[in-house]
Amino acid sequence: MKHNKPARYYDPDELRARLGELDPVKIADELARLEPSRQAEMFRQIEGDRAREVFCLLDAAHQETILGSLDETRAAALVEELDPDDRARLFTELAKDHAEKLLAGLSPQERRLTIQLLDYPAESAGRIMTPEYVSLQPDLTAAEALQQIREQAAAAETIHTLPVIDSDERLVGMLELSDLVLAAPETPIRSIIREELRSVRADTDQETVARLLQAADLLAVPVVDAGERLLGLVTVDDAMDVLTREEEEDISRAGGTEPLRRPYFSVSDLRLARSRIVWLLVLIVAATLTVQVLKTFEQTLDQVVALAMFIPLLIGTGGNAGAQSATTLVRGMAVGDVHPRDFLRTLLREARVGLLLGLMLGLLSYGPVWIFADPALALVVSLTLVSICTLASAVGALMPLLARSLGVDPAVASAPFVTTVVDATGLLVYFLIARAVLQL
Amino acid sequence: MKHNKPARYYDPDELRARLGELDPVKIADELARLEPSRQAEMFRQIEGDRAREVFCLLDAAHQETILGSLDETRAAALVEELDPDDRARLFTELAKDHAEKLLAGLSPQERRLTIQLLDYPAESAGRIMTPEYVSLQPDLTAAEALQQIREQAAAAETIHTLPVIDSDERLVGMLELSDLVLAAPETPIRSIIREELRSVRADTDQETVARLLQAADLLAVPVVDAGERLLGLVTVDDAMDVLTREEEEDISRAGGTEPLRRPYFSVSDLRLARSRIVWLLVLIVAATLTVQVLKTFEQTLDQVVALAMFIPLLIGTGGNAGAQSATTLVRGMAVGDVHPRDFLRTLLREARVGLLLGLMLGLLSYGPVWIFADPALALVVSLTLVSICTLASAVGALMPLLARSLGVDPAVASAPFVTTVVDATGLLVYFLIARAVLQL
Repeated sequence: MKHNKPARYYDPDELRARLGELDPVKIADELARLEPSRQAEMFRQIEGDRAREVFCLLDAAHQETILGSLDETRAAALVEELDPDDRARLFTELAKDHAEKLLAGLSPQERRLTIQLLDYPAESAGRIMTPEYVSLQPDLTAAEALQQIREQAAAAETIHTLPVIDSDERLVGMLELSDLVLAAPETPIRSIIREELRSVRADTDQETVARLLQAADLLAVPVVDAGERLLGLVTVDDAMDVLTREEEEDISRAGGTEPLRRPYFSVSDLRLARSRIVWLLVLIVAATLTVQVLKTFEQTLDQVVALAMFIPLLIGTGGNAGAQSATTLVRGMAVGDVHPRDFLRTLLREARVGLLLGLMLGLLSYGPVWIFADPALALVVSLTLVSICTLASAVGALMPLLARSLGVDPAVASAPFVTTVVDATGLLVYFLIARAVLQL
Repeated sequence: MKHNKPARYYDPDELRARLGELDPVKIADELARLEPSRQAEMFRQIEGDRAREVFCLLDAAHQETILGSLDETRAAALVEELDPDDRARLFTELAKDHAEKLLAGLSPQERRLTIQLLDYPAESAGRIMTPEYVSLQPDLTAAEALQQIREQAAAAETIHTLPVIDSDERLVGMLELSDLVLAAPETPIRSIIREELRSVRADTDQETVARLLQAADLLAVPVVDAGERLLGLVTVDDAMDVLTREEEEDISRAGGTEPLRRPYFSVSDLRLARSRIVWLLVLIVAATLTVQVLKTFEQTLDQVVALAMFIPLLIGTGGNAGAQSATTLVRGMAVGDVHPRDFLRTLLREARVGLLLGLMLGLLSYGPVWIFADPALALVVSLTLVSICTLASAVGALMPLLARSLGVDPAVASAPFVTTVVDATGLLVYFLIARAVLQL
């Protein structure tokens, strides 16, 4: 059927032919970079199995966009194809009534699995695990185990990692498929089971799980309940996605914005502005502190206007030192290098490093300021640099540590936040030093 | 043998017993958090196989520390155990003569493999691939393939992913071990080969390879030369480590420090200061621009000292808006959402979003500034907020885009750098608007 629409910048038949040849991973990547309205249009040109494959490769955010443009039957068929953990992730993105409609359209088995996962807290191991695995019993031989795997593989998300459970469904160990293939057929699997039992609870934070998979080079880690009974597996591909999402959060907050959780071009200008305005408002309100401080010292400023000239440089440097220390610590806590129990040790260390940095900057700037202004002002600027750097580094360490101790994401004590706090205190220090040195 | 040394805070026998029970992953994690001098001490308490396992799990930086404290024979034995890609990574961390001595101590086979990998450029697929894989020929049956795998598995890093090559060693497809296990024994592997050929070149950037593994949910991706001949496999555990390292770089630069590439507590105060001082110096030199701008407007400032009071708030807000935009774009380019070909589109978009943010802040601040100061100053502050936010967002987008176009890591155009540039231009805008409105 030909339409007499205005010319487009591609020919649908040609596009369809090209989409039939391209790697689904490539198609998914291209699709994700389009604006929402064009995503659905492109998706409709992909045929059959390929469309399903592309759909499964997309982020939940894009899956949502595409589902919104399809009729109910088609949408239901696509959602049925997803792994339960990916489906659970998609459902948390959808509006409640849309999710419920899709849930009702699932087969009873898939519906049950999805509801189960959605019962676990957000960002927990339970949410990202697959309940579709093949488990083995310790008294099987390798050959029997392989036979069992062949019979049950179709329903499983992965068979590369195989949990071994006892008759009470309690986890007793793990096997990799390669262990079974390499073992002699009559070997009892009890004797080749992997020794170290690395498992997590269903309510463990998803980042902790992902870091464990990474540290131990695992392909999957078993998830158990309080009675050590097996619930599911978290696979390495999901762990990688978790790390990327968590790092997007950290890096966004370090820049003073809320994470978009979607590709840049798929969000509207308005949504982009929304991800930033809250932080800008919080920071500008915090910045009124600097106005108050300067108001307090209005008379001093009136006497020596030259003092104003170094304000941006001094508080800028303090802000930078604070941002450095905050960024280092937020990252250190995210990867587990720094624990809240290291509180005092870390605080003292950062203050020490800040003092060191301040001494270097103070010494280096003394000469230039003397030449530019006068020796008294040079002394004021140098002393302020030493104090501000020490203060800023300590505050930059203190705020994420405090946040963590209070159970808040340390990334919230972000660089811009630290900078703003340091700005006001830095000004206070500057004018106090100025008053003392210049005897005002 | 008992020593009459001063009391330590642990009993070596007790420690040894505990280390014998703990999971090597746990030991490696604890060891990594110790200060360098204590790492070697702890490592010497771990016995036999367990020590080897822990050593393989450590980062290159920690492996270096430990090797430095061991005698040559012991060190050589540990290095021999590493996978070639991990060994190549370790050797790039070592001093040249130390690396050469260790290289000479390797078995001929491992030495050859290591030298091969070290020939590829730093941060390329060639450096992180394993040359130890099992490859199959397309005319084998599934049963024959499994037999071949059993014979060759001992020398391979992974057998979960199996490249299929023709008689010229050209890659023709991939298989997963699970495909072979599930296929009927007499199936020719030609008929079950995975269709999409996702391979990378040896000189492909490591982050690109890692993102491909992530996007396609692969366990390993084959690396080929210009003639499509197979060279090795990049496995998912290495891809995960690459992503974490790349993200550490991005997040550190976003905070204005060089990445430590080591756990926080394993570096000295001096090294911590060194990772920060260069950026602080660059930024303070850039910040002298603000002093110049203020010097130019000294007279204006002298006439209306109240103008000084809003300097930190205004340039702070500009800096925050610039940081937001820079952070979003650096991240967008890292994950591949934003390409350099989107230059103009992105720049215009960020300017638009900046204008929107500026209008909101300008409107909201008009009333409070009127009350705090006077209507004329309120107008100056509001107009400046609109201009500064637009300017800052555009500059925040421009700098990482420019960096990328010039082939420099966009993360270098970091938030603190953007902030400092915006500070000076923001002040200029502020005083120009003030002069016009207040008719000075």
